[in-house]
Amino acid sequence: MPAPDTSAHAAAPPLRLIAAGGTFDKRYDPVAGQLTFGHSHLEAIVRRARLDGGVTVDVQMQIDSLDMDDDHRQQLLAACRGAPEPAIVIVHGTDTMVDTARVLGAAALPATIVLTGAMVPYDIEGSDALFNLGHAIGCARSLPPGVYVAMQGCAFAWDRVRKNRALGRFEAIAPGSDRAGPTA
Amino acid sequence: MPAPDTSAHAAAPPLRLIAAGGTFDKRYDPVAGQLTFGHSHLEAIVRRARLDGGVTVDVQMQIDSLDMDDDHRQQLLAACRGAPEPAIVIVHGTDTMVDTARVLGAAALPATIVLTGAMVPYDIEGSDALFNLGHAIGCARSLPPGVYVAMQGCAFAWDRVRKNRALGRFEAIAPGSDRAGPTA
Amino acid sequence: MPAPDTSAHAAAPPLRLIAAGGTFDKRYDPVAGQLTFGHSHLEAIVRRARLDGGVTVDVQMQIDSLDMDDDHRQQLLAACRGAPEPAIVIVHGTDTMVDTARVLGAAALPATIVLTGAMVPYDIEGSDALFNLGHAIGCARSLPPGVYVAMQGCAFAWDRVRKNRALGRFEAIAPGSDRAGPTA
Amino acid sequence: MPAPDTSAHAAAPPLRLIAAGGTFDKRYDPVAGQLTFGHSHLEAIVRRARLDGGVTVDVQMQIDSLDMDDDHRQQLLAACRGAPEPAIVIVHGTDTMVDTARVLGAAALPATIVLTGAMVPYDIEGSDALFNLGHAIGCARSLPPGVYVAMQGCAFAWDRVRKNRALGRFEAIAPGSDRAGPTA
Repeated sequence: MPAPDTSAHAAAPPLRLIAAGGTFDKRYDPVAGQLTFGHSHLEAIVRRARLDGGVTVDVQMQIDSLDMDDDHRQQLLAACRGAPEPAIVIVHGTDTMVDTARVLGAAALPATIVLTGAMVPYDIEGSDALFNLGHAIGCARSLPPGVYVAMQGCAFAWDRVRKNRALGRFEAIAPGSDRAGPTA
Repeated sequence: MPAPDTSAHAAAPPLRLIAAGGTFDKRYDPVAGQLTFGHSHLEAIVRRARLDGGVTVDVQMQIDSLDMDDDHRQQLLAACRGAPEPAIVIVHGTDTMVDTARVLGAAALPATIVLTGAMVPYDIEGSDALFNLGHAIGCARSLPPGVYVAMQGCAFAWDRVRKNRALGRFEAIAPGSDRAGPTA
Repeated sequence: MPAPDTSAHAAAPPLRLIAAGGTFDKRYDPVAGQLTFGHSHLEAIVRRARLDGGVTVDVQMQIDSLDMDDDHRQQLLAACRGAPEPAIVIVHGTDTMVDTARVLGAAALPATIVLTGAMVPYDIEGSDALFNLGHAIGCARSLPPGVYVAMQGCAFAWDRVRKNRALGRFEAIAPGSDRAGPTA
Repeated sequence: MPAPDTSAHAAAPPLRLIAAGGTFDKRYDPVAGQLTFGHSHLEAIVRRARLDGGVTVDVQMQIDSLDMDDDHRQQLLAACRGAPEPAIVIVHGTDTMVDTARVLGAAALPATIVLTGAMVPYDIEGSDALFNLGHAIGCARSLPPGVYVAMQGCAFAWDRVRKNRALGRFEAIAPGSDRAGPTA
């Protein structure tokens, strides 16, 4: 019996999972009685999904994406620029995910960078978080270099997507068009 | 405000989800007191993951993959051959997933076909099913045509993978080598 | 084989489950991005717990108990007074559960009335809601007539309990003492 | 502000939770691909339900109740006889719960002993385990001394209950009648 081919690149390139907060990672605080941020779920999900070696979890921030300013986006850009991995997934709030994607996209880094998030927190019944993270990892390890927003089982190029807040969905737009979609 | 670009291909090609059973889809029967097969979870997951249009669920069978014979594999091959979608995910038992991948791989169909499954049923605490399906969909819509086994966040080419049953993990092998890995 | 004794009173008296809202019943709204009220979970729990006949679900309100005023408490008192069942469970927010218990307790109705709630909403990972409802039903069908607050596996008489908000716990007090416990 | 009345008996007598196995405590083994026994869930549930002090978890066995023989029942009887607590809950398989109840009931111990279990394992979506344990604890701390089977929100006296296996439900019978109900 031949030895297994342990070349990580055979099946999947090294991957960095960057936590930036957002609905995906929100937790319920029983004393305060509301959703807030604590420890990111990413480490627990890496075990649950039985991910192979070659995956690094990198918690950059735990904030609501409506509270994210340009400094936060520059921090995420620096984290991507400094990452040795060719595949990067960023878990991010959905409200300004498109804005961060544009900052990262304009930098034209050589990696495949995929932003994802969730409409329902990981801890809540019926959450889309686990699916979305799996999907984003599949995209990050398969798509050519570039920046993508991956939600609802679709990967959108960074300059061709907007969030329709009224519907709670992402939709494709023509490059250069207004990315502010309808609001609720 | 320009109209959204509703071309499905802009973000994600049409996708077929084929259910073949396996641990992923097993359900607990409270009267019999054991895990068995019933209704596939795929339709419910399509809603939970908020998948866009362009996704077709196709339940071919609900069986344990140890009970799968060549007729079942020919049925799955026929389902793939007849599918109009360029991206296909097959939810399959893990024990013989590699065998089915070899039947499909040898047929050299023009679609991207990704087999996935789960080590823990979808309904059970800590299941990897939702992650794996998301991952497989990301791969099926991103990788070039071919047949892949997608587990543990990795996509293995159909002729370069085996299941290590003793560890409950998939691992890469050199093409042409023995695909029977260690058993428990 | 003799016929089963189908007298409901043999094993459990008729039971009324009154929904008043509170953390127990809060749901996540993916578009608004916050916890809010919608359909009560009580009907779904009756099926999940396989409760026998003889259980009536009565949704009186779906509000945060901090928004509850004396009119709401009079409405709950009227619902209890009008209920034919000898056993009543009220699912209520924890913050003012003790206040409502005092209104109901002072009325000295002939039923066994048990207030319960949850520190974590039913839909959220690790919730105490299902346990608490089961516990409250066990108390309501077993304790002598009176009004009780049932939380943390304990049943407190209505005039001997306060919520310690700093700890997020209920604790026994001597009758007549100040029911305002420490706050967070 | 007066000191809280910390007398445990004020709200709830000391409680022993005895684990005997059964469907309630079964866990999925991903390598074997089936439900089996491992660590009991009772300690985790004590934390989840925020039970106060005064609760002791006592794991006597982790077996399927169809594999339980008279030695096992004598072991459970000895555990109850030796327990200092006036309230005891036994988590037991449902198939022979009634048989164990009869062994315990005939001993006429001075404690309130409540047997419960689950139709669906604690770890599986839609499980009744958490509800049933809460209910059993409410009964054990409220009912007069005796032996009871608590399922489906009902507490049955030990000599007035049988399991209807065809329906997967417990039902009341007249004392002295045949306890073997219909089978599936």
